[in-house]
This record gives sequence, structure tokens and C-alpha cells, in this order.
Amino acid sequence: MSKKIVTFGELMLRLAPERYYRFSQAGSYGATYGGGEANVAVSLANFGLKAAFISKMPEHEIGQIGINSLRKYGVDTSFIARGGDRVGIYFLEKGASQRPSKVIYDRAGSSISAASKEDFDWDKIFENVQWFHFTGITPALGDNVAEICLEACKRAKEKKITVSCDLNYRNKLWSKEKAGRIMEELCKYVNVCIANEEDAGDVFGIKAKHTDITAGKVSHEGYKEVAQELKTRFNFSKVAITLRSSISASDNRWAAMLYDGKEFFFSREYLMHIVDRVGGGDSFGAGLIYSSINDYPSQEAIEFAVAASCLKHSIEGDYNQVSVDEVKKLAGGNASGRVER
Amino acid sequence: MSKKIVTFGELMLRLAPERYYRFSQAGSYGATYGGGEANVAVSLANFGLKAAFISKMPEHEIGQIGINSLRKYGVDTSFIARGGDRVGIYFLEKGASQRPSKVIYDRAGSSISAASKEDFDWDKIFENVQWFHFTGITPALGDNVAEICLEACKRAKEKKITVSCDLNYRNKLWSKEKAGRIMEELCKYVNVCIANEEDAGDVFGIKAKHTDITAGKVSHEGYKEVAQELKTRFNFSKVAITLRSSISASDNRWAAMLYDGKEFFFSREYLMHIVDRVGGGDSFGAGLIYSSINDYPSQEAIEFAVAASCLKHSIEGDYNQVSVDEVKKLAGGNASGRVER
Amino acid sequence: MSKKIVTFGELMLRLAPERYYRFSQAGSYGATYGGGEANVAVSLANFGLKAAFISKMPEHEIGQIGINSLRKYGVDTSFIARGGDRVGIYFLEKGASQRPSKVIYDRAGSSISAASKEDFDWDKIFENVQWFHFTGITPALGDNVAEICLEACKRAKEKKITVSCDLNYRNKLWSKEKAGRIMEELCKYVNVCIANEEDAGDVFGIKAKHTDITAGKVSHEGYKEVAQELKTRFNFSKVAITLRSSISASDNRWAAMLYDGKEFFFSREYLMHIVDRVGGGDSFGAGLIYSSINDYPSQEAIEFAVAASCLKHSIEGDYNQVSVDEVKKLAGGNASGRVER
Amino acid sequence: MSKKIVTFGELMLRLAPERYYRFSQAGSYGATYGGGEANVAVSLANFGLKAAFISKMPEHEIGQIGINSLRKYGVDTSFIARGGDRVGIYFLEKGASQRPSKVIYDRAGSSISAASKEDFDWDKIFENVQWFHFTGITPALGDNVAEICLEACKRAKEKKITVSCDLNYRNKLWSKEKAGRIMEELCKYVNVCIANEEDAGDVFGIKAKHTDITAGKVSHEGYKEVAQELKTRFNFSKVAITLRSSISASDNRWAAMLYDGKEFFFSREYLMHIVDRVGGGDSFGAGLIYSSINDYPSQEAIEFAVAASCLKHSIEGDYNQVSVDEVKKLAGGNASGRVER
Amino acid sequence: MSKKIVTFGELMLRLAPERYYRFSQAGSYGATYGGGEANVAVSLANFGLKAAFISKMPEHEIGQIGINSLRKYGVDTSFIARGGDRVGIYFLEKGASQRPSKVIYDRAGSSISAASKEDFDWDKIFENVQWFHFTGITPALGDNVAEICLEACKRAKEKKITVSCDLNYRNKLWSKEKAGRIMEELCKYVNVCIANEEDAGDVFGIKAKHTDITAGKVSHEGYKEVAQELKTRFNFSKVAITLRSSISASDNRWAAMLYDGKEFFFSREYLMHIVDRVGGGDSFGAGLIYSSINDYPSQEAIEFAVAASCLKHSIEGDYNQVSVDEVKKLAGGNASGRVER
Amino acid sequence: MSKKIVTFGELMLRLAPERYYRFSQAGSYGATYGGGEANVAVSLANFGLKAAFISKMPEHEIGQIGINSLRKYGVDTSFIARGGDRVGIYFLEKGASQRPSKVIYDRAGSSISAASKEDFDWDKIFENVQWFHFTGITPALGDNVAEICLEACKRAKEKKITVSCDLNYRNKLWSKEKAGRIMEELCKYVNVCIANEEDAGDVFGIKAKHTDITAGKVSHEGYKEVAQELKTRFNFSKVAITLRSSISASDNRWAAMLYDGKEFFFSREYLMHIVDRVGGGDSFGAGLIYSSINDYPSQEAIEFAVAASCLKHSIEGDYNQVSVDEVKKLAGGNASGRVER
Repeated sequence: MSKKIVTFGELMLRLAPERYYRFSQAGSYGATYGGGEANVAVSLANFGLKAAFISKMPEHEIGQIGINSLRKYGVDTSFIARGGDRVGIYFLEKGASQRPSKVIYDRAGSSISAASKEDFDWDKIFENVQWFHFTGITPALGDNVAEICLEACKRAKEKKITVSCDLNYRNKLWSKEKAGRIMEELCKYVNVCIANEEDAGDVFGIKAKHTDITAGKVSHEGYKEVAQELKTRFNFSKVAITLRSSISASDNRWAAMLYDGKEFFFSREYLMHIVDRVGGGDSFGAGLIYSSINDYPSQEAIEFAVAASCLKHSIEGDYNQVSVDEVKKLAGGNASGRVER
Repeated sequence: MSKKIVTFGELMLRLAPERYYRFSQAGSYGATYGGGEANVAVSLANFGLKAAFISKMPEHEIGQIGINSLRKYGVDTSFIARGGDRVGIYFLEKGASQRPSKVIYDRAGSSISAASKEDFDWDKIFENVQWFHFTGITPALGDNVAEICLEACKRAKEKKITVSCDLNYRNKLWSKEKAGRIMEELCKYVNVCIANEEDAGDVFGIKAKHTDITAGKVSHEGYKEVAQELKTRFNFSKVAITLRSSISASDNRWAAMLYDGKEFFFSREYLMHIVDRVGGGDSFGAGLIYSSINDYPSQEAIEFAVAASCLKHSIEGDYNQVSVDEVKKLAGGNASGRVER
Repeated sequence: MSKKIVTFGELMLRLAPERYYRFSQAGSYGATYGGGEANVAVSLANFGLKAAFISKMPEHEIGQIGINSLRKYGVDTSFIARGGDRVGIYFLEKGASQRPSKVIYDRAGSSISAASKEDFDWDKIFENVQWFHFTGITPALGDNVAEICLEACKRAKEKKITVSCDLNYRNKLWSKEKAGRIMEELCKYVNVCIANEEDAGDVFGIKAKHTDITAGKVSHEGYKEVAQELKTRFNFSKVAITLRSSISASDNRWAAMLYDGKEFFFSREYLMHIVDRVGGGDSFGAGLIYSSINDYPSQEAIEFAVAASCLKHSIEGDYNQVSVDEVKKLAGGNASGRVER
Repeated sequence: MSKKIVTFGELMLRLAPERYYRFSQAGSYGATYGGGEANVAVSLANFGLKAAFISKMPEHEIGQIGINSLRKYGVDTSFIARGGDRVGIYFLEKGASQRPSKVIYDRAGSSISAASKEDFDWDKIFENVQWFHFTGITPALGDNVAEICLEACKRAKEKKITVSCDLNYRNKLWSKEKAGRIMEELCKYVNVCIANEEDAGDVFGIKAKHTDITAGKVSHEGYKEVAQELKTRFNFSKVAITLRSSISASDNRWAAMLYDGKEFFFSREYLMHIVDRVGGGDSFGAGLIYSSINDYPSQEAIEFAVAASCLKHSIEGDYNQVSVDEVKKLAGGNASGRVER
Repeated sequence: MSKKIVTFGELMLRLAPERYYRFSQAGSYGATYGGGEANVAVSLANFGLKAAFISKMPEHEIGQIGINSLRKYGVDTSFIARGGDRVGIYFLEKGASQRPSKVIYDRAGSSISAASKEDFDWDKIFENVQWFHFTGITPALGDNVAEICLEACKRAKEKKITVSCDLNYRNKLWSKEKAGRIMEELCKYVNVCIANEEDAGDVFGIKAKHTDITAGKVSHEGYKEVAQELKTRFNFSKVAITLRSSISASDNRWAAMLYDGKEFFFSREYLMHIVDRVGGGDSFGAGLIYSSINDYPSQEAIEFAVAASCLKHSIEGDYNQVSVDEVKKLAGGNASGRVER
Repeated sequence: MSKKIVTFGELMLRLAPERYYRFSQAGSYGATYGGGEANVAVSLANFGLKAAFISKMPEHEIGQIGINSLRKYGVDTSFIARGGDRVGIYFLEKGASQRPSKVIYDRAGSSISAASKEDFDWDKIFENVQWFHFTGITPALGDNVAEICLEACKRAKEKKITVSCDLNYRNKLWSKEKAGRIMEELCKYVNVCIANEEDAGDVFGIKAKHTDITAGKVSHEGYKEVAQELKTRFNFSKVAITLRSSISASDNRWAAMLYDGKEFFFSREYLMHIVDRVGGGDSFGAGLIYSSINDYPSQEAIEFAVAASCLKHSIEGDYNQVSVDEVKKLAGGNASGRVER
């Protein structure tokens, strides 16, 4: 039987007003769960792979429901440590047209951010595992979590488990300086580096030229240099960068580049009407892991990852809910959206 | 008082997650009813015509509610046979952007698919009737239904009732080969033939050149030949073909062509943001029947039918809920969507 | 402490089917409140200013809830007269794509339309006030209300309170002839005149050249003359005209022009996906009042007002729910809609 | 084929917060339709009888939807006059436990209240009719409506149509004095008189002894005299009085008495958990009409009517949605509420 | 690690109008899943045991979501066969007060009812298993399913797995005669027999004296003889009978009796306000299995099972969502329902 | 103009699944706000009094919305300090029948719990104030908050403001020992002491005899001694104790006792069907403050307070939404719940 993929991070309760209501108008919040690494695990499980998510969750119902939300899609939750007081929360107000989406975090003091090394037995977790994934959010949760993450990376390296990291810089959690310092250490153990159009600049000061993100202009070419410099500094085997051009909160262009250490592969670009933009990057990560595990040629690999994440933008919630067949159909060029009967 | 239009087919329970939820996310389904011929009847009733729908429905509440959904709009349901076990169901997941809509049918064993000739007294049904309409779905429900349909067509012919048929090929219900064979027989009695950009090819092997539907490219010119060949083979008095260019699940271009045996009339083309695409073709059929009954000149007729169906795409559910005035306003060129106070 | 802005008009109960449901499909109505002048008051309160709304509302719950909806945002409601029988209602069906939004008014006999001069003590109301605002809807409610409005204008003038008026012509309420006659009288007291692309023509017969509103074509240049003529006739200190090009019910272009008596200032133009179009003009008025009170230079002033109202179009309900910071960000050029975390 | 029952009155839009929300908490209103006589018509149609409802409704959508709500259940709406400005509205807040339900009427100026004699051609309406029903609300809508009602009563008498009247006193619509005077005149034409435990007292000053309604105490015996006096004064062939003991807004006891001019028949009494209490009396009226038309013996007749209305209290909305079978099962003694599979 | 409990049967899609709406009023259906044996599995998983559910489900989304609904609670679904066309459906209308709940089944042709022996490898399924449970519904699905069930029973016997069966007679699925014949054969392999107050009579003709279920009267004593005769005929080690006294659709009394072959143990009786009555018996079965596996003394065992099912009646949906702690608290006598903070 | 009542405490975001859903079933949470002292302020504002609420709330939207929820009802929020990071949250699962309601607190680190003395200028806050109210929850939030509370009490004493305190013991926030010690100090400044049937025992070890709360038995007489001892120890001018007998989560008996230092006054007892039990005690406190300020005689005072809180139990959310008229009607004996038209 196939080996597992393990992801490690925080699972948050996501509270979001329905439709396009502003916070001040909402009488109720849709209650789902999400978080970078959990999103990757769910997407991989939906692709039919064996995925396990590692974290720490309180024993009460608000913690249990988060676990249920993963089990529902077949994610292995048996290694999630239980204990602590609270589930981190993020409030999400969906934007539209010129009005941006808004996220308010309320994650301080969550069980995972207060976890200790003893909560995780990596030897056991990494039994029969082929891939380990985390994002830059995990070490940003606290020095203790950064240390746990480092330990996991080292153990993965020993066991020849492929390690991927999505840089995912969050300025509410740590400074660019601290992010740079800690990610530098972690990236030594990383094989596959994933970033969006801003991360490399924020974390490592490696910026793309000719790009003005606020104005919705993204120079695809400028990212070749970014990837190359990342590769040079950390000896990644692969670097993948997503390229979002934000026309408005409702319309984005979406593409990505894969650098395999030798060549650069650009995906086709999609013009997307956005249903839910959160988790877009994570669904890309999952797509890339899937196509890597299945040894797709580089061009196909990046097309698969971008098609997967393109579809995610049409789906409510953090989790990507698409099958391999659906992704392949889009990656293969069928973007007409005709009814399937 | 004006004569009735009669349509004959299956009325299904439509179960659809709200908004853009995938099936796997839905905790409830919006429950409405729909089906090609019922959709036409409702649309005609909303235009102020007398429309009757013929089918067979179980006596229990799930059957009765379907009938209620028609009575609500004034459709005559008094000839619907009652009995059998179940209402056919279709599950509909609405697509968005690059993600297509998805339909799962659960219609086997429905009351209408198990109906027999004795359920329908066409002599009584066709009293004071001017038009009979069915689609290719009806005979596809089973050989028994195909025979009932044939009987209805013959009786209509005898009574000089105009017969229209929307080819509406469904590959889940029958093979192209079988569809071709049975529709060939039925089309002998048909005066007005309606088809979408794929039907003539699927049913009769008559394909438009220079058209790649999956890629969203539709050659309007290629359909002239299609119409002409249909006319030649079946001696239809009119052939109308809808021309959908699917840019994405959210955006379609929509137009149609009418061939009156002499000339070809192309409607203007609309770029539509789609609210609900199901029933789009049926609303076109209803528009065409309305404009035919009211002796609109061909160009006006096709503009009316296309405007009616264009509006349908902005309306939830299978049924088109527009008045003649609303259609005329759009057909007359006012597509600016300004608030009407 | 800063002085108040006072607005005077009708507050209606707004009953609207959810999403894009037609009236005939709705099993429930979203119940909010709105009205030109109340919308301005709420928007100003959301900008952090002190705003008071003046009207008359019945004592029962349907009246009280309207008041609650204003208090929620900090609007001063202490001068609203209580009494009379009913709250005016408007039913709103939201349009989509080629299908226009539809408004059905049921406002006859509302408390404010039956109010008398004794209901309002303008001397007290105007204590510590810097600005008075009304729209053309208020005097259209009845001759009694027109007289009350005139009294308010006169008293404002005496107290050197700036008076603004949004012409806002409603053909369901009065004829163009009557509107012209009464507005002529009221405009003598007005300093700042606000109008949309049709109002000056409807009320005063001053039409822009080269403009076909139904076709979605608006000649920005033609409005220079309109503004100039308005200025000439009424000696307004400022004339602001909003310029909406309606592509469809879902997409509008939006811009405005400000004439300060010397120069013309055109804002940038936004292409908007519309969430809710009602109250768009009112949010513009509030933006203009805010920027005027804060002595913005003319170009900044019009950019602020247009950005505020652009954001309104992405928000459900009549009330604009945006902060000064949010407006400034957009007015400053950041329209990419990227998530704010 | 069986003859029709005709009812005449006002159909109102009913706006009610969901569940037990107070008005001040509701963000939306459930939107249904109801009115004493329409409720009777729907209930009779649900019993399988031919029922027609007569009223006047505006031509716009808010009027049309009311008509749709009747057509849905098969009520004949073809004699409803169209025109006028508005649909009467009532706001309903559902009570619970010690908190009473609350109704706010907003019905002044409705189309039916402004109707004229010319709107109704009673000769045509009364073709093939066996029964005419109205309630005391109809003549209370205005002197014009009282006159129309009187005309209908006279014409019914001439045609030997049975006339029933539910006294249904509404103190918001007219004084007891005026009600008494006008109902006196109308009751001359009435065969079957229906009243609740307060009506005879309010309208004709005929009060039951030993009854304190506010305290939830109802002396069944005291109503014998009330019925007898009604019979004596108006020569009714039957008098039926419903006997509600209100324990709380959530729990009521419910029974009724039928006086056939000779004997008194008391139904069994039900202890009901209330889902929706509005329309309870109307569903009793419909039950009585049904059992009268079907010549039930008096004891069975009153049991049927009470069982029908008992079931109504478990159903949301004004309309009673029960079949004859369901009523018979309860009237026959099966009140255990066991699941029917 | 503890051994598994395996249950085998059909998982249906349950479609239920919200709250107390009748079918004819519902615009949407809550969509959950349920079925006797699946309900037991979920309840056991919620008690912290390892439970696996065996069935056959189609591969499409409507099948997958059913599986998701089980995985969410940690039920092992890895042995569910995939294939076939449809998921059985049941429509549920919730009753209130005197109005009974109503179930409409639409389960013919479901994947499990069309399953064959090859779909299930009982040797593999029964690895590391301690208990096997099914209900009388499973063999009623078809002769093929009855045979599969018999095979499972035999294999369980060989492996010394305890077998429990809930008689659960459904007259829509088979005649009493056929049920008796087939259940007779299956019961030879059953150790623990569960029945409600009607089942033994329906299936085996063993009726309790002095009991009139429709009238809500249940003679607890009469069930001693029923249990004894069941024991005598089938040599069950335990017989448990639930005793429901239905006061109304809203209020039931609920208790049960356990016969351990020697003594009779009656639980305390609960007066329940019913939130959702479906699955009440299944939650009792799960409670009994839990208390049996944990070797509770008989009185404690029956109290646990009844308390568990009492709580189920307060919970929406088929699945019982309670923890062992919650059940113990109630079984221990704390039924005051005070808020737990 | 009348003087204000000031209350001081925490305002929490309340997240509650709809209806009777368990946490594990909820896809969304109703989002309202509540907290002991805020609930009192809203209830007093709804009684027409001037009420101000004092707390500290973050500046972001989740804080602002809480303030909006108070402004909506006219509560003065101008002295609420702004700052800090988060709003305390409580998750509420509503119980039914034998299943208790469940509260999960997530309030650590809220803005008010991290407030400092500098955040509140009591001299300004207490301008034109007649009454100050807090509950035992406020000092339990932290030593800093206890100190602020003590300061407020002292300042109130100096200004001859009446001070009331609801003991309201919360074992999740502090130990009984600590509660006793700190409340002892604060109670020196309290004039009116409010408690439920457990508080005096939990906080001060003063227990009622012959009472077993879990079993739903409450000895009204035993509370006389409790009140007397409280009076003796703290020299309260009034002691009021609510007496809840919990029959189940759905049904409670509700009464209270007032001790004015001389006599004991027992209210009538209500049997309540519970819609929402949270805030029941707070609504009692508000009723008592209202009746005290209005100098009601003791028996009337306690009847008013109990009637007010009885009505609260029929209302969703923490806030009591009733008028003085409504309370008086119930307190005056009209508990029949008949519809008010």
C-alpha cells in the first residue's frame, strides 16, 4: 500500500459571514475549519492519497469538530495531540469587486501554539511516510513550535522523507527579520520550496523585478531570478512560485512557475471569478505534491497544480474539494465549464 | 378563448446545494421541480398562454408537490396520470468559473418511465389544443414512453395540432444509435424542430463544421448547413438552433438561429453572467412557441426566443419566470439592467 | 466637539428576496431599512461624524426597528417624531445580467408622508449643526412634507448651515412638472447640488448631449454643460453629478464629476461587479459631504466620494458600511482587492 | 361533477420572523399569504373539494404571488378582480410560553378594501356553486365591501346557495356597535353561523356565563345558551362555537360545540402544543363546511371540524395543509402521533 | 487494542423539511444520512469504540457523502463495497402534537439492495471483531441481501463473534409471513435480541397482553411473557424490549426491559419532549451493545441503553451524538437539564 | 431628565448552533453578544431607562459589532474603553428535554480581562448616575478587574449611587475560596444583593436547607434563612433570590423571593417552556432595578422582576427584549398567551 503524506500545523475555526455580508451585518457565521497544512492534507486525501495531519487540539467539542472536519474526508487524525485550552479562530469577511476580503485573527493561546515537544512522537508519526509538508505559519506560532518543526524536519531528513515548505509569510505572527532567521534554519532540510509572489521577498528579501502587486501587475519573468536565487541559497530540488494578478476581489489571474533546478516551466494562466480565495495557495501545494509523488513531467506537474488551485477558487471554504479527474480535465484544456450530466 | 399548448414528459425533483457548494459540502438541498417539457409549460403559462402538462406522477406527497409547483403558475395539471412509485430525481451542483456544473440523475423507475398507454386519453387531452411539444428526453425514458409519444404525435397530426420537438439528446438515457432510430420515426410528425449546438450531431450525425464546443468556439455559419439538412430529411417547417459559447461556468455567450425553410435568421448574441443555466434551452423553446403562435416575423421571433432564454439564465431553478413585457424589453434592445422602479 | 450633520426624509422597510430570486420564488424577504437621507446619515456615522436623522415613524415595533437600525450605527435618532400608522415599504428584487432589478413601492400613508409642521422643532434640531441634507424624494412625499422641507431649508439658511440636496427624481411620486416647480423653490436655499445622470433632465429639463442611458452610453463631457447651467440657475456653490454606465444589472461603470463653480473635476472610473446597487447615489452624497466638511481639495473630494460609493456597490443593503480608511485606500489607487490580514 | 364552494374576503401578505424571534431580532420575514376566507378555500381544496376565492388584488407581483399561493393548492382564482395599489399586510410575531403572539396590521388601502361593486359579477361567480362563505372581517374592511358582501349574500339566497359566516370580530377594524349593526343585516342571509368563544359577545352582546377567557377558563356549558340565543335571533340552521382554553402561548385546549337547532354536540377536547395558531378558527370553518356538505351526522361533523383545526395548530402558516384521511384518523381517536411509514 | 463492532445494512439519504414544515411547504430539505445499522455504528463510535459499517454504496458523490457522514464520526468505512446506481432515500416530515411524523421511502434499486455475495469478504471483515449487529431491515431488502446476511451470521458464529439483531419490522418491505420465515432462520445465530413494543408481534406473532399502542397504552408487565417466549424459541442469551408510550408526536414516554434469561430488569421511564424520534431504537441498541461489551450489570446496562436513547430523542438526525459521560450522567439520575458551563 | 444606570462587566460574542443542533452538527453559529451586566443594561434600556454599559472592547470589527448590538437598543456605549486584542467568546449549545445546555468558554485574554485602571474615569462615568450594577463575574475576570470594580464601588458609595450586585458564581473563573474572599470585600459597598438558588452557597457557604437542585427540588422556605444571613453579614438593604426548579432543559419552574430586611415576599411561580434560558437571571436583575427605581412596593417589585425574567425565557439571545407594558400585563396575572392583535 502507498506511503503517507504528513502535514503539520494549526487547524483554525473559520467564522465567516454568509455571502458578501460585512462583519457588521452578519447575524451568523458559517463555521468551518482551515489552516495551511490541514488544507493540504484534505486536498491530498480528496486526490485519493493517504494523508495525515499533525497538530494539537483541545479535548472539548470545538476541538473535536475540527478533527471531525478532517476525518470526513479521510484524513488520518490519529496523531493529533489532544489538550490545551482553545482552538485558534479566524474571522473572514469575503470581499467583492473593489472591496478586499478581510481577515481578523484570534489565534493567540491556541493548543498548538502552546504545544511542547512531548506532544509529538515523530518516530511513530513518520512510520510508512514518504512526504512531510509544513508552511511558514507553523514556526511562526511560537519558538516552541518552531523547535518542534525543526525536530520534525531533522527526523524526516534522517528517514529520507521528502520535505516541502510553503514559505507563507504572515506579518501578524512575526517580523520579516525573525521569519528570515528561523526559516533559514528550517529550509536547510527542505527539498521542495513553494512560495507566492510576495513570500520570497518578505522572508528572504529576494524580490521580483518589474512587479507591482498592489496594482495587479506581476512580471512572470522576474520570478525566474527569484527561483534561481532560492535554489542557490538553499539547494532546493524544486522551487514553485504562484503568480496571482489581483484585478479585483472578484477577479484574479492565476498561474505559476516551476523551476526544477534546470528549466523554468510556466503554466497557462487562468482568469478566475472568485468564489473563495482562501486556501488557494494550499491547494496549489497539494497539487504539486500529488504531481511530484506521481512523477509527472515538470510541465504537466505545474499545470496540474495550477488547475487544482484554479478550481479551489470556485469552492467555498479552505479545503479543496476536487478529484484528480476534475483537475486533469481542466489541466488538459477543458475550461469551458459546460454542464456535466 | 385561446387554445391550449400541451407538453408531455417527465417532471423531476431537483435537489441542489445552495449557492456554489459542492455536493460534499451541502447540509441541505434546495428542492424544486423541473424537466424539459414542464419547463416549457410553465414558461408559456407565465407568458399568459394556456398550457397543460402531461405526465404520470405518484399519488404521495413527493408527486403532489411537483403538481403544485405547476399549478402555482397556472399550468393545467388535470390530465396528469396518478400512480406508480417514485418521482425521478436529479441532483444539481452549480459550477462556477472553470468548475463545471454537475448533474447526477436518479430517475430510473419513475412513474412516467413505467407508464402505459392506458394512462393517457389523447383524444380528451387534445381537445381545444393548438400545439403539442415534447423533447428527445421523453422517448428516451423507455420503449413504452416512446410508444406513447408516438401515439400522441399521430393523434396530434390527425387533429392538425402543430408539433414541436426539442431534440435534447441525453447520453445517460440511450445510445446515439437508438436515439437516432426512434427520433427518426417521431420526427415525421414534427413541424418545428429545436436543437442545441450538439443535438443534431448526437442524434442524427449532422455536425456543424468549424466548431469546437469544449473550447467554447461555435461557428454560427456552420449551423446553416445543419438546419438545412434537418429540414431536408424531415421536412420541418422551421428549424431553430441555439448557439451557446461556453466561456466558463459563469459566463456564456448565447444566440440562436432560425431557419424558416427559406432564410436564416440569426439573433443578436448576449454575453451572460449565469445564475442558473439549467432550463436555458427549454425557455428558448417556450419563447419560440410563443412567437410562433403570435405570428411574429422570423427575425422578431428568434429575438424573442433568445431574449426569453437569456433572461432565464439569470433566474434560479428550471422554470423561466418572465413576462412577455420583460422579454420584449430585452429583445427590443434594452439590456442595460437599470433598476426598474 | 464637532458639529452635527442633519438629514431629513423617509425611512422605509426594505423587503427583498434573498440572492437573485424573483419575487415569485421567494419564501422570505430580507428585512432591512433604507431611504435616501437615512442612508446618508448612516454612512456619515460610519465615517465617524455625528449624524442625526429626522423623520416620523409609528410607535409600534415596525417603526421602532427602523430606529434601531440607525442607532446601531450611532446615528442620533432623538429628534424622530413618533406617531402615525405605518412605515413605508419597498419591495426589491435584485436583477442579474440582462435582467434589471425591480422595485415595487408601497409607501402611501406612511407616518412621514402624513406628518405636520408641529412634528418638528427645527430650532432645536439645528442646535450645534453644520450641514443639512435632503433629497428630492422628501418634498415629493406630499405638499405637507414639501412645506416642512422648505421651512427646514429657510431655518438652515438663517443659521448659516450648509444645505445639500440630491435631486433624486422619482416618477412614481410626482410628475416632472410638479417636481420642477417645487424643487425650483427649494433649490434657492441649497449650496451643494447632487444629481445623477438623469436627474437634471427630469427635474429641470437640463439634458446632457450625446448620452443614451438605456444603451449604457454616458458622455462625460456633456455633463459639464449640465453642471454649468444648474450653477447658473440656482447659484449653487458646488454641483456634483454621478455618471453611471450600466453595462448590465451585474456590471456598471461608475464615476462622477464635481464642478466647483470654476473648474470641472472628473474622478477615475470604476468597473464594478454589483452586489447591491441601491443606495449607490446616497453613498456618493455622504462621501461628498464628508470630503467637503474636511475641506478636501476638489479632485480629492470627488475621488473620495466616488470611491465611497464604488465600495457601496459591493455591500448588501441600503446603508454604506465603510470606514474612512477603506475609502481612502481605494481612492488612493489600491483597487486590487487583495485579502487584508 | 361536484359544485363549488365560494369564499370572499381579503388575502393578506403575512410577514413573520422565523421561529420565536421578536420583531426587534428578525433580519428576515417568512413571507406567506393568508386571510380568513382564503384559508377556508385552501383547506377545502386540500380536502379535494372545488373551492374558489373571491377578492381584489393588485396587478403587480406582490398581488400575483398571493394568487399563486392559492393556485398552488388548486383553488380557483379566476374570479379575483385585479387592480388597486396594494396588498394588505400583517406582521406576525409568534409567542411562546407566557409571551403572547403579536399581530401588527398594515392593511389600510388594500385593493379589496377599495373595491367597488363593479369588480364582481356574482351571477357568474355563483354558477355551479353550492356554498358561500365569508367572515365578519370582510364587511369590516369598509362600507363599500360590506355592501358588496350584502349583495353576494342576497344573490346566494336567491340561488339557494348555503351561506355560512364566521363572526370573527376584529376590534382594530370597527367598533362593536358598528359590527353589531352591519352583521345583524348580513346574518339574515346566513344559514350556518360560526363563532369563537368571544365573538358572539363582541358582536351581538351575547355572553357566555362562568367564563374568564384571560384566565384560560372556558365554561363549555355556558355556550349552550349563547348558541340558542343566536339561533333564536337569526334563525340559523346551525351554530358552531369553538372553545379555546389558552393555557399559554405554547399550549391550548381546543374543542367545539355544534347546535343543530335541536341538540348540542360537544367534541372531544385536545391538548395542543402549538406550532402556529393563526388560522385555527378558519380551519374549523372549513372542516364544518366539509362535513356539512358530506352530510355527516352532527357528532361526527363537529369531531371532524375540531380534528381538522387541531391539526392546523401543528402547521406553519395560515393555510391548513391536511387531507381528509388525516383528519378522519385523528377524529377517529388516533392521537398518539406515532410515525407513519 | 480493543476489538471492533461490525454492523451491516443500508445507509439512506434522509431528506427532511426544516422544523415542522409539511412536505407541501418545504422549499428545501435537510440532507443527512441514516439507517438502522449505520446509526448503531455511529453511536458506538461516539462512545469511543471501534465500529465498522458494511454496505454497498454507489461511486458517485451521493454515495460518497454518505460515507463521509460516517467517517466524520470515526466509523471505519473501508469495507463498504462501491458500485451500483443509487442511494436509497427516505423523505421525513416531522410531526408535532397530534400530527404524526410521516416517512416516504424511495429505496428500491439501491446499491445495497442489488448487492451480491461477492461484494463482501466476511473473513476479512471479521478480522479482530467482537460483535456483529444487524436489524430486520437488512434481510428485508431482498432475498440476495437476506442470503448475504445469513452468510455473515454463520461466519460470525464460527468466529465466536457475538451477534445482535434488532427485529425492526417494516411492512413496506415485506409481509409479516415472509419476515417471520426469514428472521426465524437468521435468529438461530443471534445472541442478543432487541425489539420494540410491536416487533415481536409483527414478526413472530408474539403479542403483549393489555397493550393498545395506538391509544398510547403500553403494559410493561405484558412484555415479560414476550421476552420469555422469544428466549424459549431462539435461545437468545438476552432479550431487550423498548417500551414507547406515544402521548403525541411531541411527547413520548420511554423505557425498556432487559431479560437476561433469568430475571427481568425494567429501566426508569422518561417523559420526553421530542426533537427527533427517528433512530431512537437504534440508539438503544448501541447503548445495549456498549453496556454489554463493558459487562455492566443488567440493571445498569438497561439504564444506560435507555438513557442513551432518551438523549437521542433530543437530537436532530438519525445519528446519536452523545458521549458515554453524558449518558452516564442521565442514567445516574441527573435529568434536570441544568446548563453545563 | 432621569439619571442613568451604569453596569460594568464583560461583553462576549455568543456563538450558538441554530435550534437544537449539537456542536458537532452545526455548520454555522448564530452570532450575538451577551454578558451579565450588558444584559442588564439592554433590558433597562428596553424599559425606557437611560442605561450605560462600561467595559473594554478591541477596536476591530468583532469589538465594534458588540458595541453596535448595545447601541441598537439605545444603551450608552460612549464610556467603553477601546483597545486590547480580543472579544471573549462563549459557545452555547441549547439543550432539550433531558439533554442539558452546554457552554464552552473561550474568554481568556479578552480586552476587559486585560484592562487597567487608567481605562476608566469613574468620576466622569458616574456623572448624573443613580445606580451602579455589577455581577460576580466581573471581579472574577482577574485581579486587575477586581480592583477596578472595587474602585468603582467606592466611588459609587461616595456619590451616593445605589450599588447592586448579582453574586453569579462561575467555577470556571475562580475557586469558591477566592470568590468568597473578594466578594466579601466588594459586598461592603453593595446595597442590593441578587443571587440564584446556588450562589450564596458557592460564594459565602450559606446554603439553603431541604434543597436538592440537581433533582429539581427547591425549598422556597429554606431561602429565607439564606437571605437573612446575607443581610446580617453585609448589611444589604435588599436581598433577592431567584428560585429555579429545573424539570428538564425544556421546562423550568421559576419564582423568586425578596427580603427587604423586614419581610419576605415570594412571587407567584411560573411553569415555563424554555426558548432560551441564558440571561434569565440578568433579566431578573434588570426587573428588580427597574421596580426599585420606580419605588414599587415589595410584592409588586418581586412580581415585576419575576415576570420580566419569565418572559426572557421565551426569547432568543442573552438580551431581554420586553417592554414595561408587557411585563406589567404578565405580572398582573395575564399569562394565557392569547394573540394580541
